[in-house]
Formats: sequence, structure tokens, C-alpha cells
Amino acid sequence: MNLKIESREIIEMESRYRVHFINSLSGFKSANLVATVDKKGRENLSIVSSCFHLGADPALIGFVSRPHSVPRHTLENILETEYYSINHVNKDIIKNAHQTSARYEKEESEFLHCKLTSAYEKNFKAPFVEESKIKIGLKKEEVIRLKNNTELVIGKIELVIIPQNCLKKDGFIDIEKSESICVSGLDSYHFTNKVARLSYAKKNKDLEELVD
Amino acid sequence: MNLKIESREIIEMESRYRVHFINSLSGFKSANLVATVDKKGRENLSIVSSCFHLGADPALIGFVSRPHSVPRHTLENILETEYYSINHVNKDIIKNAHQTSARYEKEESEFLHCKLTSAYEKNFKAPFVEESKIKIGLKKEEVIRLKNNTELVIGKIELVIIPQNCLKKDGFIDIEKSESICVSGLDSYHFTNKVARLSYAKKNKDLEELVD
Repeated sequence: MNLKIESREIIEMESRYRVHFINSLSGFKSANLVATVDKKGRENLSIVSSCFHLGADPALIGFVSRPHSVPRHTLENILETEYYSINHVNKDIIKNAHQTSARYEKEESEFLHCKLTSAYEKNFKAPFVEESKIKIGLKKEEVIRLKNNTELVIGKIELVIIPQNCLKKDGFIDIEKSESICVSGLDSYHFTNKVARLSYAKKNKDLEELVD
Repeated sequence: MNLKIESREIIEMESRYRVHFINSLSGFKSANLVATVDKKGRENLSIVSSCFHLGADPALIGFVSRPHSVPRHTLENILETEYYSINHVNKDIIKNAHQTSARYEKEESEFLHCKLTSAYEKNFKAPFVEESKIKIGLKKEEVIRLKNNTELVIGKIELVIIPQNCLKKDGFIDIEKSESICVSGLDSYHFTNKVARLSYAKKNKDLEELVD
């Protein structure tokens, strides 16, 4: 049986209930760790489920920083240094990644408290997460304040580190092979099982399943 | 072995290769069908992988409309009528959903060509996808043109239709139980397998797995 829930009922929901409810609605989300460092060398690490593809040329990724939530230090550091990294959460580091959402002070590194390792690459200011298999280095392009006081952070991709055996002939990266996971709602973590890759859709032409 | 790919190499990639490559990087994505109708009653349906949670109070979802891509009719209809629906793709309609990305004319309904059923709810102008199990009715709140000529469409949630047995006590919606799927890159579709829900993270406190 289906439930129909109207906006009036959403407004009347208890606040924490509504947060779970609305966070579940957009569908499965990426699970990434955003890593930054401030000018004093203090590192920050924050799980973010709102990263999204914004364009391939120029190569851009966006994510949303919430008004009173934990990634505030992340945003401050990005505004200060311009550089950050996005690192996929994989099956071995789900709990470490989730723990970064606890409220640590700016002096406390989530790397240390959540048992993850910061690693630096030549000519790139921000740290990466050693345990991640897919790592992206970005430079801030634009930060846009939206009406609900969230900030949309848009970054240009400067560096990509991926396992060689996950890169396919056509440029597709097999992130399931790298054991990246996804998230739903605030706190539900999921493995994936590939159904198929489908051919480019054309009018009056049957879809084919792509084979590696 | 790891590959390190720098921005110079990304710029030099063949265009279609780069599209696959960059689209894979942000992680797993939601798979949704955005349904609209114009003032003449012509329906449009378009698969979108960029829906993201933007806030719970007010309840907002954002998605990105690309400059020269198929959802152009979607954006035109949203600007014309203000209303649209977001419908989760589930395992039974993956091929139908993917086929909506073919280039149909405005006069041609993707519902018809892709064998999906449009359904209307009382007091809501835009159609829903009958075959979807999780359906969200939205009203346009804001459309923001970004620097790379993509448009960020932000909508307020007006109506939610979900199977009763997917709604948990704390407001979480079990979208895996509703057989919603996720996507990576442009064309790779995946089931999910829940690992666990984790407790709210606190400093110096071990995480617990939440049980239904």
C-alpha cells in the first residue's frame, strides 16, 4: 500500500524525523571524504554525500556545504587555501568515514581520530586519504550561497588517482571494482552489484548491454 | 598499480572518452526520471543522475540540467508550468529509463516511446511515473545558471508517494527495499546491498549498527 504525504505533513514532522525522511528521497548518494588543510597545517576530513558531476569540459564537481553542519571547517579551509580533495569511501573504511561526522574541534584532525591516513602528492596543497582507492584533487572554482543558506562549492579537477585496472578502454572508471560504496539517507551504507552498462540510447533502436 | 592523471592530460582526452571518465569520478549517483508536461499537455520524461538533497526544512531537492543535453525539454516545461516530479528508477524499468535519454522531439512523449505510464494526482499539475515506487512532486523554487552554462534547478517538495512498508519509525525510507537502483558514469546501472545503518557519530563514542 502507498502512503501519500503532503507538504503540510512534512512541515509538521518532528525535526529529526523530517531530516531522515527528506534525506532519503533524492535516491542513492555518493559517499566521499573531503580533505583539506588550513594555512597553519591543521588537517580536516569530512564525509560528504552531496558530490555531483557538473561538467566534463571543464572538468567540474560540485558539493553542498550545509549551514550548521560539520563540514564548516572544510568550507573555511577551502576558502583559505583554494585546494581540496574528494576521496571515495570504500567498503573497508565505512565506519572511519562515518565517524568524521562527529563534532571535532578545528585543532583536532579527523584523520587521527577516525584512524585514516593523510597523504600528500607533489605540487598539490591539500591532503588525500591514503586508504581511498579513487582520489580527486580539486581547486575551488566558485562558491555560491543558495537561498536556504547552504553553500554550493564548485571545484575544477586538477589531479585524479585511480587503480589502473579500474580504467576501461572508453574512459569509464569501474568504481564498483574499486569497492566504492554508496549511501542512502543520513546513515545507511550499501555495496553495489552491477546489472549492466547500456549502449548510447537512440530513437527506434534497441539498447544493447555493453561488454568489457 | 595506480594511475595519476593531471589536468593537462584530462584536457587532451578525446571528448567522448573524457565524458565517460569525468562522469565516473563523483561516485555512485541517484537514478531518477523527471516528468513534466507543457501548457499544451505534451508530456516529457527524462533520466537524470544529478538529483541531490539540498535541505530538509524547507524540503528541497536540486538537479543539474546540462546545456545541450536531452533534459532541455524538461527545463523548458519546468520554467513554463513550475511543476515537475522526480521518480526513482527501480530494477524493473532500467532499460525504459535509459531509453528516455534518446533525442525525441517535443511532440513525442518519452512515456509512449519508452513504455512507461504517466499518472496524475489530484491537485498536482505534472505527471508521475506509475511504475516508480518512490515519487516526489515538486514546485520550482529557483533556477541558477552556473558558469559552465549548466542550470541548477531547485524545487520544493510538495508531495511524496512511497510504499508504506519502506517507511521506518525514525523517518528513514528504505529505498533499497523499494528496489531503487543507482548509476555510475553515463550508463552503468547497479543494485545495492545494505551493509548497515550506523548510529549518530559522537566524539569518543563507538559507532553502533542500527537495527530495524
